[in-house]
Amino acid sequence: VFEVDWDAEAVELGGFESYMLKEIHEQPAALRATLAGLLGPEGEADTGAIGLPLREVRRVVVVACGTAYHAGLLGKAYIERLAGLPAEVSVASEYRYSEPVGDGDTLVVAISQSGETIDTLAAIQAARRFGGRVLAITNTRGSLITREADAVLLTSAGPEIGVAATKTFLAQIAALQALALALAAARKTLPEGELLRMGRGLRRLPERVEEAIGLAAPAARQAAALFESARCALFLGRGPAYPVALEGALKLKEISYVPAEGYPAGEMKHGPIALVDERCPVVAVLGEGLLREKTLSNVEETVARGAPVIAVAGTGDGDARRLSGLLLPVPEEGGLLGPYLWTVPLQLLAYHVARARGLDVDKPRNLAKSVTVE
Amino acid sequence: VFEVDWDAEAVELGGFESYMLKEIHEQPAALRATLAGLLGPEGEADTGAIGLPLREVRRVVVVACGTAYHAGLLGKAYIERLAGLPAEVSVASEYRYSEPVGDGDTLVVAISQSGETIDTLAAIQAARRFGGRVLAITNTRGSLITREADAVLLTSAGPEIGVAATKTFLAQIAALQALALALAAARKTLPEGELLRMGRGLRRLPERVEEAIGLAAPAARQAAALFESARCALFLGRGPAYPVALEGALKLKEISYVPAEGYPAGEMKHGPIALVDERCPVVAVLGEGLLREKTLSNVEETVARGAPVIAVAGTGDGDARRLSGLLLPVPEEGGLLGPYLWTVPLQLLAYHVARARGLDVDKPRNLAKSVTVE
Repeated sequence: VFEVDWDAEAVELGGFESYMLKEIHEQPAALRATLAGLLGPEGEADTGAIGLPLREVRRVVVVACGTAYHAGLLGKAYIERLAGLPAEVSVASEYRYSEPVGDGDTLVVAISQSGETIDTLAAIQAARRFGGRVLAITNTRGSLITREADAVLLTSAGPEIGVAATKTFLAQIAALQALALALAAARKTLPEGELLRMGRGLRRLPERVEEAIGLAAPAARQAAALFESARCALFLGRGPAYPVALEGALKLKEISYVPAEGYPAGEMKHGPIALVDERCPVVAVLGEGLLREKTLSNVEETVARGAPVIAVAGTGDGDARRLSGLLLPVPEEGGLLGPYLWTVPLQLLAYHVARARGLDVDKPRNLAKSVTVE
Repeated sequence: VFEVDWDAEAVELGGFESYMLKEIHEQPAALRATLAGLLGPEGEADTGAIGLPLREVRRVVVVACGTAYHAGLLGKAYIERLAGLPAEVSVASEYRYSEPVGDGDTLVVAISQSGETIDTLAAIQAARRFGGRVLAITNTRGSLITREADAVLLTSAGPEIGVAATKTFLAQIAALQALALALAAARKTLPEGELLRMGRGLRRLPERVEEAIGLAAPAARQAAALFESARCALFLGRGPAYPVALEGALKLKEISYVPAEGYPAGEMKHGPIALVDERCPVVAVLGEGLLREKTLSNVEETVARGAPVIAVAGTGDGDARRLSGLLLPVPEEGGLLGPYLWTVPLQLLAYHVARARGLDVDKPRNLAKSVTVE
């Protein structure tokens, strides 16, 4: 009989009240370790290390489930923007039963934290039928997926105990961004100097995430109070903020059981805005530039309909502060690092909503950490 | 001053208690008129009538919003399966601000019932930048979109007054299926005999939809009772049943304000199943063949967690009857006509849930019939 030693667990928790909270705080370290394995010390993309003929790739297909699927959506954006390659993302359980088209120049990127997700493994088999080359992104050395794939990018996030993925999500995005940089370098779609600049920015990401955790922590706790009598929630974003909104909604669903849906902000008027009232908070991930402005104007519509609005926005964003009941502040950061930073306050928000409801954030009902059956 | 004459409205309603219910019942006529304009009397695809060089198409991109986006997802399935062309579907408000890639051999299909949807019109402009050819699918002769597009497929569903789209959705799917047949004929991806057989099946669709309305009406009213104290709902499906699940969830959100989300059934275990309890009904669109079996097994998991289950399944489906609290029966129909028939009971379900809550189904709060601002 194996007995769990309460003291041992307390030590493992290192003072945190749950694994999820501990793992949110481990994100800088998870990114540091992951990036050290994927980029040179100066942020150089190592095109050879991936071990696949990246120059020949003509199209990228990402297959994944759950949180890893959301990472895939961000990966698509990075790959299209940096490497100029068409990319699509499929839910693995759908892809495996479709008749996927492709050829030997199709790079299939399969993402699974555990490396044992049954649908993702089956999606690889489906891609084999048309001769696709398979790159696995996983957090688990020696897992099944590492044996099924032609090449592997390891995330080094360390073991994740909380059922709701947090640090492995950010590590997956980083791996996808490193892949996009390597594809761009191999295909020479961007000047070398620009790629190096991006790589260096990525190596500085852990500090920015550290900063994001510090900034968001008090506000996330306050924002959770707006969910006390919430019957549902909508998470909105445009462009790269949309996958972040999806992930924020998934975290809230998973651990607080509040029905929450992520939507591209422009779709609001085509149906979901009917849900909006005082008991349906709207969480808006504003992003930057033109998309920020467009999202702000969608948010204004929900304010007019009585929704409590929580905006994820830069600390100095006066418009966001004026419009929203509460600001979840994030470090000001343009370009490709935004999505990592915008994710942090949403993890903390879900955490505090669940805690306020007295729920076990590490072991939400009905869920298992890795899904090894269909 | 224009005064609304109550009696005139009553006449227009033709005995129905709302426009939405009337329009659900007009679906066979809407399909008949639409198909008569798109296929020959024997179901022949008229490749010339579309007025675009279909043989040169190498890739299809569908852009749309809301319900039309769900039609686009089904269109993708039809185009891939019949014409063997890669197809993708984009939310128009996202597409317009992305940097879409493509060339003159990319067929961009823009769907808008009103023909005035601002984001869909802007998506066409974005496609123009790479030289894409644009085919519009609209229900409104002379609308803006007909002037922006290179060619037009008109749906002839007649005016739709209810804000929640019903008959125009089925008409849009029919137009997309006719397009898929025309692409297949032009590209000779299927034997002529098989295309004719499919075309003939499509011409018989209005009778099957008539049958579906008759079958589902009493059960949909009963099923609505399961939503009396519902705090949310999940709509599940795989393959072609997934867009139908999305559309079913959207109808329910729009007119009953119950938070409802559509999911690929295989994604349940990756998060959403945490929502499931006695107050979160699960609506399963079973579909057919292997996907039906896989969906059934996902449904079983939700039953075990106490969810009231409503299955959309063939009248003789014993497994569905055994598993679910209530069956929404649909005519047994294999192949490509399933999605039309599976949609009907979900429209009626949303209708009865909203009525039972005393809501105005024709004018849901916060929504407009056509979205002409961002």
